[in-house]
Amino acid sequence: MDEEQSRRLAAADDAPATTTECKHDDCVDDAEDPESTGNGISSLEQPLLKRSNTLTASHLAMVGAKVSRIESLDYEIIENDLFKHDWRSRSNVEVLQYIFLKWAMAFLVGLLTGVIAYWAGFFYFAGINFGLTFVAAVLCVVFAPTAAGPGIPEIKAYLNGVDTPNMFGAPQLIVKIIGSIGAVSSGLDLGKEGPLVHIGACLANLLSQGGSGRWRLRWRWLRYFNNDRDRRDLITCGASSGVCAAFRAPVGGVLFALEEVATWWRSALLWRTFFSTATVVVVLRGFIEVCRNGRCGLFGEGGLILFDVSDVTVRYHVGDLLPVTLVGVLGGVLGALYNHVLHKVLRVYNLINEKGRLAKLALALAVCALTSAMLYVTPFAVPCTPCDPASGDACPTTGKSGNFKRFNCPAGHYNDLASLLHATNVDATRNIFSTGTAGEFRLDSLLIFFAVYCVLGLFTFGIAVPSGLFLPIILMGSAYGRITALVLARFARIDHGLYAVLGAAALMSGSMRMTVSLCVIFLELTNNLLLLPITMFVLLIAKTVGDAFNPSIYEIILDLKGLPFLEAKPEPWMKDLTVGELAAAKPRAVTLQVVERVSTVVEALRSTRHNGFPVLDHPRPGVSELHGLVLRSHLVAVLKKRWFLPERRRTEEWEARERFTSVELAEKAGSVDDLDISPEEMEMYVDLHPFTNTTPYTVVETMSVAKAVVLFRSVALRHMLIMPKFQGPEISPIVGILTRQDLRAHNILGAFPHLANKRKAH
Amino acid sequence: MDEEQSRRLAAADDAPATTTECKHDDCVDDAEDPESTGNGISSLEQPLLKRSNTLTASHLAMVGAKVSRIESLDYEIIENDLFKHDWRSRSNVEVLQYIFLKWAMAFLVGLLTGVIAYWAGFFYFAGINFGLTFVAAVLCVVFAPTAAGPGIPEIKAYLNGVDTPNMFGAPQLIVKIIGSIGAVSSGLDLGKEGPLVHIGACLANLLSQGGSGRWRLRWRWLRYFNNDRDRRDLITCGASSGVCAAFRAPVGGVLFALEEVATWWRSALLWRTFFSTATVVVVLRGFIEVCRNGRCGLFGEGGLILFDVSDVTVRYHVGDLLPVTLVGVLGGVLGALYNHVLHKVLRVYNLINEKGRLAKLALALAVCALTSAMLYVTPFAVPCTPCDPASGDACPTTGKSGNFKRFNCPAGHYNDLASLLHATNVDATRNIFSTGTAGEFRLDSLLIFFAVYCVLGLFTFGIAVPSGLFLPIILMGSAYGRITALVLARFARIDHGLYAVLGAAALMSGSMRMTVSLCVIFLELTNNLLLLPITMFVLLIAKTVGDAFNPSIYEIILDLKGLPFLEAKPEPWMKDLTVGELAAAKPRAVTLQVVERVSTVVEALRSTRHNGFPVLDHPRPGVSELHGLVLRSHLVAVLKKRWFLPERRRTEEWEARERFTSVELAEKAGSVDDLDISPEEMEMYVDLHPFTNTTPYTVVETMSVAKAVVLFRSVALRHMLIMPKFQGPEISPIVGILTRQDLRAHNILGAFPHLANKRKAH
Repeated sequence: MDEEQSRRLAAADDAPATTTECKHDDCVDDAEDPESTGNGISSLEQPLLKRSNTLTASHLAMVGAKVSRIESLDYEIIENDLFKHDWRSRSNVEVLQYIFLKWAMAFLVGLLTGVIAYWAGFFYFAGINFGLTFVAAVLCVVFAPTAAGPGIPEIKAYLNGVDTPNMFGAPQLIVKIIGSIGAVSSGLDLGKEGPLVHIGACLANLLSQGGSGRWRLRWRWLRYFNNDRDRRDLITCGASSGVCAAFRAPVGGVLFALEEVATWWRSALLWRTFFSTATVVVVLRGFIEVCRNGRCGLFGEGGLILFDVSDVTVRYHVGDLLPVTLVGVLGGVLGALYNHVLHKVLRVYNLINEKGRLAKLALALAVCALTSAMLYVTPFAVPCTPCDPASGDACPTTGKSGNFKRFNCPAGHYNDLASLLHATNVDATRNIFSTGTAGEFRLDSLLIFFAVYCVLGLFTFGIAVPSGLFLPIILMGSAYGRITALVLARFARIDHGLYAVLGAAALMSGSMRMTVSLCVIFLELTNNLLLLPITMFVLLIAKTVGDAFNPSIYEIILDLKGLPFLEAKPEPWMKDLTVGELAAAKPRAVTLQVVERVSTVVEALRSTRHNGFPVLDHPRPGVSELHGLVLRSHLVAVLKKRWFLPERRRTEEWEARERFTSVELAEKAGSVDDLDISPEEMEMYVDLHPFTNTTPYTVVETMSVAKAVVLFRSVALRHMLIMPKFQGPEISPIVGILTRQDLRAHNILGAFPHLANKRKAH
Repeated sequence: MDEEQSRRLAAADDAPATTTECKHDDCVDDAEDPESTGNGISSLEQPLLKRSNTLTASHLAMVGAKVSRIESLDYEIIENDLFKHDWRSRSNVEVLQYIFLKWAMAFLVGLLTGVIAYWAGFFYFAGINFGLTFVAAVLCVVFAPTAAGPGIPEIKAYLNGVDTPNMFGAPQLIVKIIGSIGAVSSGLDLGKEGPLVHIGACLANLLSQGGSGRWRLRWRWLRYFNNDRDRRDLITCGASSGVCAAFRAPVGGVLFALEEVATWWRSALLWRTFFSTATVVVVLRGFIEVCRNGRCGLFGEGGLILFDVSDVTVRYHVGDLLPVTLVGVLGGVLGALYNHVLHKVLRVYNLINEKGRLAKLALALAVCALTSAMLYVTPFAVPCTPCDPASGDACPTTGKSGNFKRFNCPAGHYNDLASLLHATNVDATRNIFSTGTAGEFRLDSLLIFFAVYCVLGLFTFGIAVPSGLFLPIILMGSAYGRITALVLARFARIDHGLYAVLGAAALMSGSMRMTVSLCVIFLELTNNLLLLPITMFVLLIAKTVGDAFNPSIYEIILDLKGLPFLEAKPEPWMKDLTVGELAAAKPRAVTLQVVERVSTVVEALRSTRHNGFPVLDHPRPGVSELHGLVLRSHLVAVLKKRWFLPERRRTEEWEARERFTSVELAEKAGSVDDLDISPEEMEMYVDLHPFTNTTPYTVVETMSVAKAVVLFRSVALRHMLIMPKFQGPEISPIVGILTRQDLRAHNILGAFPHLANKRKAH
């Protein structure tokens, strides 16, 4: 309204004025024309710039070739009543405020001008980063919140038997791909490894069920995979393919899936994952061959080996043991510290993220701004280094990637910190791993680099974009390794680039607590087999030291996300509790008769959230029978199809087969609340014989919880039935039923607090 | 006696002769002395050589400075009656015989002289080989028959839960070490890999129980490991250390244990085996550093990488796929064929070996003779190759190892087959893997080499010496790979040395059916990471092709040895049988009461060979209770200690603790037959409460055998109790008990032949 008003006023004020237009060429040609008229009537022939030389009172100023309205200013102090009153009523404080603010503004104007002049590059840099982060974060926040983060903990939980909802669908896949590209290109301190693992798992899941949601293919031969067992195998393959694709490490990928991700492992699975990663590596090899001449941007650089350090012949002596051991021990300590601090940061971030979508977005963008600022500013803190003419490489570097970034340095000089910070994460790693470069990086540069990446590594991971942990930790660790080499220069006779590799391995092991898979991944990354024994040594030390402090980073995240992960090793105090005691602490198990009234089934489904119900029978008086276990989804399917019997009888096999197929039963059934069953139907019967799993795994009530946990995890159960140890009349054939949640240490301690005293420190 | 006699005669004959001695310098000085006496009286001053100038009839000849008796010969035909009669009585035939024989002898003398002159080397070679094989075989045959062969199948069975008697003791260890050295040095076509794996396992077992037999340490802290679970872990570590030591492949060792040897696998075990192999590799690295200047013979050659082919930059294109695929497919076929023929050979050898120790020894020595003959003779079949002056290596080779053995060639020439055959197996592999040597080996040499090693590989493995399968197959496969490269020379653009590597990998995979571990072992052997994708490709093809024909070589050997190995995957027809039906086909389980009469216990132990007995109780009338399972060894321990009660009562906890320690119970108890229990004691009672495992794993009788097998193997059981599905009076709380033998497919088919029809082809 105000704007509209002022426009109208302006129109009244300058009534005769007409907008003029001038093509620049014409204007210059006509500059000599003396017939200039001041009355506002303009034509293409009229001069534009000359006009200001005359004293005509035109309110039209020409700025470039555009015409805009101008207005004279009143610098006179206008002393009307209102202003005067305002001026007089001001206190001294307000006057001081006024003065201070005026000075402050003067300062700010100067500062900002200077900053903008000087930092145009930064804003360009930060702006692009901001935009990319924005895209990534908006996608994650709006379309697929589960696509944020690495996804590895959820995959780990899935393979342990816990399904996180909306984790492996098509939206997650698309958001993960686009979001990961955005997040990595925006220069955030995160890797594409975790997201690639998640992408592999999503692909495996989607392929196994023939697509997503409504657009699913329903080919007959796809139905074979529509079960949790086969999907588990395929998702394992997907996870190993992801690591393989990220690091070009086929064997490392298989071992990562084996050591870190999978809960159950079979020899056949080893072969299958190996086949997947072999395919990945052959495809990658093909693309690298196609892209040999730099036709695909940065892809293909380094060939199949990302960080080749094979040009160094490693020889080491007893004297090298000291610095290498130190790298391992410190790596373990730093890794554990990283886990500890990241845990705290993630808890704070959780609080922020819970405030809603805007808070999530703001957090992501704030971290992006912080990242851009730190990456851009810090290289100014170190002086330029003169190029070493003896080195064969171009110095300063001319292309996008290279060891010697010129930054703001004079010719023949480079800024070593800029070489590390103003590069993609992969290039930075390649630079810091580069061998034969002991003098190239200054200690202060490395310290700054390490500090920057510590801060960024801690604050970037929890934001709402797809992010991986590998590369940030590798970057941090490599800086730490080189720092150690520089500090211990007198003892460190191995190449400094190899120290960077060892430092990265140590920090990885200290934080993630993997051994064999890391070892192979580093071997496949660096292609230096002679480094293997010393890498193994460092990894073992770092893991041991790290384990003394806290659990691995993935375990911490699993715990933070509240995923009911079942650990491989039962707690020691679990030996002192029997499953019978555990079952007694729970509400009594809801059992069904093998031919049951519809109302009872509906009641059981509505009143509980159990997913499995023991089915009993009474074959003859005084004798009861454990018939088996029926799943909630199957009961819902029966109710949906209204397969009810008017009388209590056992059906023939063909009766059920006529109505149900195994494919239908394998589908996830809906909720029982959607069903509308009439009172007449409620009085009818359901025969559960065809649906009952007659061979559930059972334990006797005297079994210790420790052994039950081992059984539960070894055979990959969802429900475990408890049988009585007694045999006689009036004894129920079932004591209770246990699920994953019942066997989790935390939940047991809730019901049996006295066991907590016996609990060993983790 | 004869010698003594002849000495006495000689003394009589030459009574005056005295032995003369002369220091050479003196003799020369006294040569001019004219006073030479012929009457045998000699002094240090008498000349020695001058004496022959005189015609004195001395029977003393001087050979060097030693004196020996000489006698004149009668070339005259002596015509006394006897001789004449003999001469006249000879028939014409006999005369001809005489003439022929004389010629024949002349021929033989000539031949043998020639052969011996020409073949002195062979007999030296064969003799040494014979001796070494003899030592190895005698050790194996007499002291530790189980030390013959590789030992890997038995380790595999042990880790599956089957203990082969006398497998991991001190005699086995010692025989294995010495025998393996003997067998490998004797040039037999066998490797030290399998024996090293067995040696690692023996060491692990002996360490875990504190030594062997009577000389066992009984330190308190060793008792922790005196159980099957911990020993299992340690033996896994031993096996991976063995592979690591054989191939200097730490990661390959871990993966070998994981993929081929172990049945159960936990993440903690991964870490532990990794620690073992890291230790091995650090120790090896140390020794190699010490032995750098060839101070330790052949050890240390090649450094940590046995067969380095990293000097070739591997580049391959779509066109290379055809020959490489062919290598894989043929490798699979040849591997399966090798398995098939070896199976037949081993069955024949089993028949021979059953005939006794001498037969075993003769077989081993015969194979040794065959080996020596084939290795020595065959290089004569190929012509000499002129040295390539462009090659940088010494040609012909001067030292023990090298690519260009001169054998019987003129100067500047070499015999390529001798380079392969007259070398240690490791050297031969290194030669055939050597890169940049496309023209070095002739096709006919390689074909002969391949044929020789096919024959030797098939006939050597089953003999009674410690032997490994790896190196023979690698040698065979490398020859096959190079042959393929030569035959397909037009398509094979990759280096021929790499084709040898691929051929070896393909044959290994075709025979042993391993994938990931072989891949890593080959990577660690050859140090060429760029070869990895193509190796994976070949391995996968070869395994797939091989699996189409027959099971892996270790499975074949396991089956031949009759070890009750429990397969990971149950047979499909096992789903159609319940454990209840299986138990019904067995004799009824022998159960004990929880407080039982001594006589009943003794009877149960004597009448059965069961190792576990279900323990029942009757807490109140009409109600029975499954109390648990008691082990035979614990019952024997109780009987040995005579822990009997005069009345039927339940003991207090402290009563048993006073008499028994867990360490004692963990020891293997002796036989029940050695016990002498008086009739009074027989009438007493035993309280089994303290000894019963109250938490045995159980299944309901309706469980399918397929699921029971999975459970049995997953949780690593020895006994599985079957419970009834019914609950009521008069029903026993136990239906039966199943052991490993009951769950083996072969045994089940014996009891339920109709299932065989449903049996799928393997």
